[in-house]
Amino acid sequence: MATKANKINTALDDAVPLQNPFKIHQAMRYSLLAGGKRVRPILCLASCELAGGVEAAAVPMACALEMIHTMSLIHDDLPCMDDDDLRRGRPTCHKAFGEETAVLAGDALLALAFEHVAAMTRNVDHQSVLQAIVELGSAVGSEGLVAGQIVDLSSEGKRVSLDELEYIHVHKTSKLLEAAVVCGAIVGGGGEAEVEALRKYARCVGLLFQVVDDILDVTKSSGELGKTAGKDLATDKATYPRLMGLEKAKDFAGELVAKAVEELSCFDALKAAPLHHLAHYIASRQN
Amino acid sequence: MATKANKINTALDDAVPLQNPFKIHQAMRYSLLAGGKRVRPILCLASCELAGGVEAAAVPMACALEMIHTMSLIHDDLPCMDDDDLRRGRPTCHKAFGEETAVLAGDALLALAFEHVAAMTRNVDHQSVLQAIVELGSAVGSEGLVAGQIVDLSSEGKRVSLDELEYIHVHKTSKLLEAAVVCGAIVGGGGEAEVEALRKYARCVGLLFQVVDDILDVTKSSGELGKTAGKDLATDKATYPRLMGLEKAKDFAGELVAKAVEELSCFDALKAAPLHHLAHYIASRQN
Repeated sequence: MATKANKINTALDDAVPLQNPFKIHQAMRYSLLAGGKRVRPILCLASCELAGGVEAAAVPMACALEMIHTMSLIHDDLPCMDDDDLRRGRPTCHKAFGEETAVLAGDALLALAFEHVAAMTRNVDHQSVLQAIVELGSAVGSEGLVAGQIVDLSSEGKRVSLDELEYIHVHKTSKLLEAAVVCGAIVGGGGEAEVEALRKYARCVGLLFQVVDDILDVTKSSGELGKTAGKDLATDKATYPRLMGLEKAKDFAGELVAKAVEELSCFDALKAAPLHHLAHYIASRQN
Repeated sequence: MATKANKINTALDDAVPLQNPFKIHQAMRYSLLAGGKRVRPILCLASCELAGGVEAAAVPMACALEMIHTMSLIHDDLPCMDDDDLRRGRPTCHKAFGEETAVLAGDALLALAFEHVAAMTRNVDHQSVLQAIVELGSAVGSEGLVAGQIVDLSSEGKRVSLDELEYIHVHKTSKLLEAAVVCGAIVGGGGEAEVEALRKYARCVGLLFQVVDDILDVTKSSGELGKTAGKDLATDKATYPRLMGLEKAKDFAGELVAKAVEELSCFDALKAAPLHHLAHYIASRQN
């Protein structure tokens, strides 16, 4: 996994060179190369290989996923959204570069994601690349990340049901993780049955990711997290620990790991090991 | 041209149905269906036909161009950018729906643009669709619209040279017009020489568009324009009338029309008529 993360970091560094106009490229690089966990790119590469493809075929797609994830963090942190000052242990993009540059850096990363996949993907049939672009777009837009964020914002300060909470998380978190896995499988040449099994795996992992995020927000300090802790509580946000209690939320996380791993049972165990490992890694992460 | 605009309006209406979550789709539709001139989509359809394609092949691409153009208007109007209250005669998106919804509506339109082209383009070889997606992405990102906007913002209140002014306009306006023409030609099956001639035409038209915009800002009222007039002067922005004087700016506009039309001379005159007409239309528009 560390090898895959390094490969992605190098590819991202190459994809956004520091060029004119400097300010926008500085801001893009500041947020993109801030040392995230690269969960989505790693999922994408692992899924491509599990579906029978070579890793290189999925690298541009993996970079695009991280560009999109970074864009959503930059825009979600804006004063008019979650108004966050800290991200990955450093000032958020708008704190470091100004609000207008943060909006534009997000826009540029989003556009670049699609351009990069279309321009840089090699040795994959063109129809599969287009199919993956459709998956990617739908994970971001008004039926994906954006849908989750708008419902999340409108739920602040309100009583939210578990169903609504799940809607928010499925859209804010799971959709892009799902796209990572599905797009990886598509460019890897996976068949329909393989893509569907991996889609189910991704849905469990997506939900797991959010449950763990919510648990960490109430159990860790800002220093440990690299972002403002206790924020969900302060802003009266709906979270799993609040709705089901901390212990039950931890149990729920355990169930989701088991279910995710079960979805991988149709694959060769050795080949599926990275995705197996990733589910456990997400469950046990400390920041 | 009116027929083409109607076709685009219908296709845009279909592409963004009013569905859950309502607020985001309302905001997207509010700005997208606000009755713009549809210059970019019309250029795209006309260019597709000039290159030998059928109009229908370019409709998804034409819609994507208008989605991207609308996204850039929504984000440019934000308080942290140009802080505009009025657009196409109505309150700007953030005035009508709030700042957070405006940011998200722009993001969703940008993602949808790429998804829509990849999912909906029919009877065009897949490689050409990918090539057009690369053109589109590069027209938006940190070497396109975003580059123009960031240099524009940083130039406010400063003395700007004609070269810098041209950099801003080439990136803020011409790049997307160029993408409209070039993408139309690509999905229309045009050869390299045709694509290049059309690219040159688009560059003239792009610059023309901005020169006329600047002239209208100082010669028309807000009511006539449907947006805040005299704003460039009030915010001390660099414009052609300011740098070369109003009369010389008008002469420059005339030269650009002539040059644009000249670039079309290699095409069949009858087939090139819509693009010929469009250059004159842009030069003589009153809002």
